[in-house]
Parts: sequence; C-alpha cells; structure tokens
Amino acid sequence: MKKKISILGSTGSIGTQALDVIRSFPDHFEVTVLAAGTNAGLLIKQALEWGPKIVVIADKTRYKEVQTALHTHGIEVRCGEEGLIEAARYPSADMVLVSLVGFAALTPTIEAIRARKDIALASKEVMVVAGGMVTRLAEEKNIRILPVDSEHSAIFQCLEGESKQQVEKIYLTASGGPFLRYHPNEMECISPEAALKHPNWKMGNKITIDSASMMNKGLEVIEAKWLFGLDPDQIDVVIHPQSIVHSLVQFRDGALKAQLGTPDMRLPILYAFSWPQRLSASWPRFDFADYPSLTFEKADQKKFRNLALSFQALRKGGNIPCVLNAANEVVVQAFLEKQLDFMKMPDVIEQTMERSVYIANPDLQELRQCDLEARLIASEYI
Amino acid sequence: MKKKISILGSTGSIGTQALDVIRSFPDHFEVTVLAAGTNAGLLIKQALEWGPKIVVIADKTRYKEVQTALHTHGIEVRCGEEGLIEAARYPSADMVLVSLVGFAALTPTIEAIRARKDIALASKEVMVVAGGMVTRLAEEKNIRILPVDSEHSAIFQCLEGESKQQVEKIYLTASGGPFLRYHPNEMECISPEAALKHPNWKMGNKITIDSASMMNKGLEVIEAKWLFGLDPDQIDVVIHPQSIVHSLVQFRDGALKAQLGTPDMRLPILYAFSWPQRLSASWPRFDFADYPSLTFEKADQKKFRNLALSFQALRKGGNIPCVLNAANEVVVQAFLEKQLDFMKMPDVIEQTMERSVYIANPDLQELRQCDLEARLIASEYI
Repeated sequence: MKKKISILGSTGSIGTQALDVIRSFPDHFEVTVLAAGTNAGLLIKQALEWGPKIVVIADKTRYKEVQTALHTHGIEVRCGEEGLIEAARYPSADMVLVSLVGFAALTPTIEAIRARKDIALASKEVMVVAGGMVTRLAEEKNIRILPVDSEHSAIFQCLEGESKQQVEKIYLTASGGPFLRYHPNEMECISPEAALKHPNWKMGNKITIDSASMMNKGLEVIEAKWLFGLDPDQIDVVIHPQSIVHSLVQFRDGALKAQLGTPDMRLPILYAFSWPQRLSASWPRFDFADYPSLTFEKADQKKFRNLALSFQALRKGGNIPCVLNAANEVVVQAFLEKQLDFMKMPDVIEQTMERSVYIANPDLQELRQCDLEARLIASEYI
Repeated sequence: MKKKISILGSTGSIGTQALDVIRSFPDHFEVTVLAAGTNAGLLIKQALEWGPKIVVIADKTRYKEVQTALHTHGIEVRCGEEGLIEAARYPSADMVLVSLVGFAALTPTIEAIRARKDIALASKEVMVVAGGMVTRLAEEKNIRILPVDSEHSAIFQCLEGESKQQVEKIYLTASGGPFLRYHPNEMECISPEAALKHPNWKMGNKITIDSASMMNKGLEVIEAKWLFGLDPDQIDVVIHPQSIVHSLVQFRDGALKAQLGTPDMRLPILYAFSWPQRLSASWPRFDFADYPSLTFEKADQKKFRNLALSFQALRKGGNIPCVLNAANEVVVQAFLEKQLDFMKMPDVIEQTMERSVYIANPDLQELRQCDLEARLIASEYI
C-alpha cells in the first residue's frame, strides 16, 4: 500500500525536495494533493507530472491560469484559504506535508489534524504560534506530528527506542549563518544579498534570513519545546558551523546521542514519510574525509539577540511566541525590501513583544487577532 | 527488586569501576559474586565491603590467604578454573559481568550463558575467539549479551529502536593511541613505558598495549561482527583522537547516529547493568567548551598492521580469530617483558596465523587446543 501524501507548499524548497523524494520511491508514496501560494507556473508543471486529485493555488488572482491549464486533464482546482483547508482535509490522504511559509500554515495544519491526518511538519511557525493547542489536538485525534526540520528530525531519530522521562536536555545545533565571524560593528550594514547567502543550506528566502539573524534557531527552540514536551531549561543551542551534526540528545545517565550526515533535506523529509521504517536511499553517503574537523562553540545571545528573545518568549508563553513570530515576519519582509537594517530587526521584535497584551491561553481566534495586531505594531515601528 | 550481579574480574580496571557504579546505585544493584585472578589483597578488601555470597581467586597459590581472611565473615571462598565456573553459574545471580583478561574469559562466559544469566561483556576476547558459538548459545538460552566496551555500547545505544536490517554499516572510532603521529621509523624503538601511556583512557596493561598497537580496535571489529550480526564489509574504523564520539551507525537511508560523551567507562558499565532503562547519574556532563573540535581521519592499515590482520582473520573465520588472539596475548606479554620489539608484534601474529591449521567450525575443545598451539607457535618465533 502506497502512502498518500498531500503537499501544502509544493513549489517551495521543501515541497520540491519532497517531490524529489517521492520520485525516488514510487512504490512507497504517491501524491494526492498539491497546493502552493503564488507560483502558478511551477504548480501547473507539478500537477501535470503527478496527476493529483486536486490542486490548490492560494493566490486567488492566479486561479484562472491554473484552472485553465489543468481542467482538461481532469484535475480539480481550488484557491484561497478555503482551498487550502479543503486540501488539508482531503479524505484519501494519509499524511499532509505542511511546508507553507509563516502563520498561514496554522489553520490548514489544524484542519488536517482534525481530519486525522498524520502531519509531516516543515513549517515551524505552527508550533511557535500554537504549540500547546496543536499538540493537544494531535493527542486527542491520535495522529503523529513528524518533524521535517533537520534539527528536530535529528532529535526525533535520537529519541527512537528511548523513553521521554530519560531525556535530560537537547542541543540544537546552529551553523551560525553567514555572519558568525562578523564583529558587531560589521553587522550594522548587512545587505539582503549578503544575508541570503547561507554557508551550508539552500533554502527559501524567509528561512535564510531567519538563519542569518538566528531567529530560525529561536523558532526551533520553541518548536522543540512542543514537539518533544520539554521545559525551556532543557533546550540549549550550540554553534556548529559545518552543519553535519544535526542535533543531540543528552540522557539522564549522561550519554549523548547525535544524528549526523551531509546537509540534505531529503533525508529528514524521507524519514518523516517512511517512519517508523527507514528506506534504502541511494544518495551520497557522509564521508569523514570531507569533514576532518567538526567544531562547536557557544551561541552568543548578545550578538544574536533573536535567540535571547525567543527564549524569553518561550518562558513567557501564552500568545507571546505568536507575537514574536508575527513581528519577525514583518521585519524580515521589511529587511528584504531594504526598509529596515539587519540589526534593527530584534529591536522591533522586542518592542512589539513589550507592547502586546498578554493572553495566557489564547484560542485560535485570539491567535489570529494577536498575529494581526502584532503585525500592525511592528509595522508602526519600521 | 535489585539486580544481582556477579563480577568475574573484580580487581581489574573494569571490575573496580563496576563496583563504583554499584556503589552509586545501591537501590538498583547488588553484588552476588566477586572473582579475581591474582590480586588477593584487593579481592579481600572488596569482599569485606560488599559481602558477596562467594569469592573466587583464580590463582590457587593465593587461596589460603583469601580463605583465611574471609571465612570468619561467613563468605565462601573458591579457587582455580573450577571456582570461576562455579562463580559464573552461581544460582541467585541475574547478570554476570565478564571482565577477565584474554582467553581465560571464554569458559566462564559459556557456563554463565548455559546457566541462563545475562552477560555484561567487557572481555572482547570471548567474541573474538568463539563469537559464533557464544551468540548461538545465547540465542538458544534466550539471554542477552550487553556490551561494556565503550564502542560497542555506543553502537548498541544507537541501535535502540532501530531494526537490524536497516543498518548499512558501523564506524568504530579509534583514538589512534599514543603513536598516531609517529613516523614508521620512530616506531622501531617504542618502550613498554611509552606504550602504556594512553592519551584518553586509563585501562589495564594488556588492553593499553593493544590500543597502542591498534590490535584492540582489530579485536573490536571482530567482536562487533558477532554482537551485531554484521558482515566484515559493514564494519569500518575511523581515527578520532579525542575519544568523544564513541562510535557510529549508518543506516540504509544514509542517516548516521552517534553516541558520544566524555571518556568514562562507568557509563557503558551502567548502561549494560540498567538496560533497557537509563538511570540518573550525577557524574559530570560532557561540555562542548572542553572539546571545541572533534577530528576524524582514515585509519592507516599499513602503519597499524594489526588492524589489517584482524580484518583478514575475520574474513577467514573459523579458528583464525582464535589464533590471532592467542598470538597477540603472547606477543604483548613478550613486549611488556622487553623480549620483542613493538613493530615485530604483527610479524609474529601473521606468521602464527599462516602456520596454524584451519578449522572451519571449531568446538570448544578444538578452540582450547588451537589457543594452546598458537601460543606455542608464537613463542617459537620470539
């Protein structure tokens, strides 16, 4: 029996690599739904290759184009958030890969869980914004959330066969991004072009800027709390510029386990798809000769303030991680449009966090409201 | 219910550290039997602290001394190989830690398995000499063999929750010992004192010389074959001078898992005792700040010929690993007594392997005979 997979965010970096994985394992997986934000051209091409049941373009202005290209092939086309929700709940799918950018991933993820689909989660914002709600719902519906981030996949792999109460702490590794060796003075005038050059990973723009500013690691810290049921004090970050050790777990007897390998997102994607199995993959193996030295250093939370802000948001809890995420989406966009300096991003996020009203147990409606308000506040500061 | 543990080899490096572990977990473990080779003084001291059911001194000439010291305390004393066998089979024990040096570990291990005891195995020679026989017997008696070597414990930990057919290969890490950076010319005149200085681990004399000559890694390769059911081609050795990454498993999807930590034998000992649990230990945790760089390099089988000889013995199979082990025990003793040069050790082992008669499926009697003959042949060459 092939596993039927819906891909929400099929034209992005994770989505296209997920299709590469499925292409390599045609006996194991098939594509049920393809959904994308705005890239109508690639979505049409993907749909013609894979022949999914339905295709969704979130951007309503591109609906006609997609509909015209696909309706003669018997593929149904939907659009907008309603379309994404229909895609998330599509009956015959076994698993939904959520790889949409930002807050927009939340509602479709919740709908997929309500429809009892297992989730392969690439959009860390889902857990950042609504980790408590999403994990409770997943438990209630008895579905699995499988991490696709390389760090969380590494932790997940290290926890296989180990019981949760035996975990002492985890280390998330961070490459440190392109500015690890910059002096604080040099960081004043960073251009979007420089920030978009990640040393080890080729990813989408938003996550690449987040990596450069270490907000990506901050969001991962919050995501890890919910995925693995940890206290903030059980989560640590260590800089590892080679991105070979993807993360580590320390157990209560002092033993550390790590998962490592060449930086290639296809592995965590495959693991999320195939778990609890591992399938035979033919991609190149890690070779120690290519990495004779693996280095580790302390993460500097003074230089990379987003990391400190993320721990702060995690400790405050409630709606504050949602505020952090919303403000970050706004500042990253502003930075990419050259309306905000690189080093000003944490200032705006911090001020937005301070000015937002605290809600201890926000429901989905309150989170949506909080997300909108935080965006407004952050925009005002820019 | 406390786990009742018999310690065969209680006065050696592993034995004393095992008692440290038991001392730290008095609610979990207790000592049933203490057995030692020749160190009567320490054995008496240990017996008075732990009050085991019986005590064994293998060296019959020390029996009187031990008997006199302990009989007033109601502790029974035995001696010789018969004593070791009685100790191995002692009815109330749940687990037997085998940490005797060399071939002498074999018969007591077999007797303990026949008596349906789980084995915590520190004496790798057992698996080197009779891996096939011992693993078949363990399966038949439905007991567990838990590795105590740090490398094999690491592999064992990485395999938790993973299925055997998903393993592609393993990497055993090797520190490279004190002579890793020596030019072959410099290795001609190595003294026993120099060879006894291991950079990372404090161990007994035999294993320390084996580490310096890389025979220890060779024996571990053979041990790994039997403990984890691998083909020789699935076992690789990588030099890692810091001894932090204790070993790695590569799975068929390309993922690598490693177990790491500070070099401290108490962890693998505890893991073997407590498995499948992990107990909370208070010893110091690994700190990346102490090891900012972990390095890896290819193992040079031309310089460290024992490694090549071990793979050769493993591929030949039958009684040849037994010959390798016997010849090695003789040459190490001769080297320690300054009767043989460091670089001559592999010569003697190789010649002994060539001159021994091949037996495809030796039984225990044939192995004993083969061990004796190989010792004679090796001695002739010295």
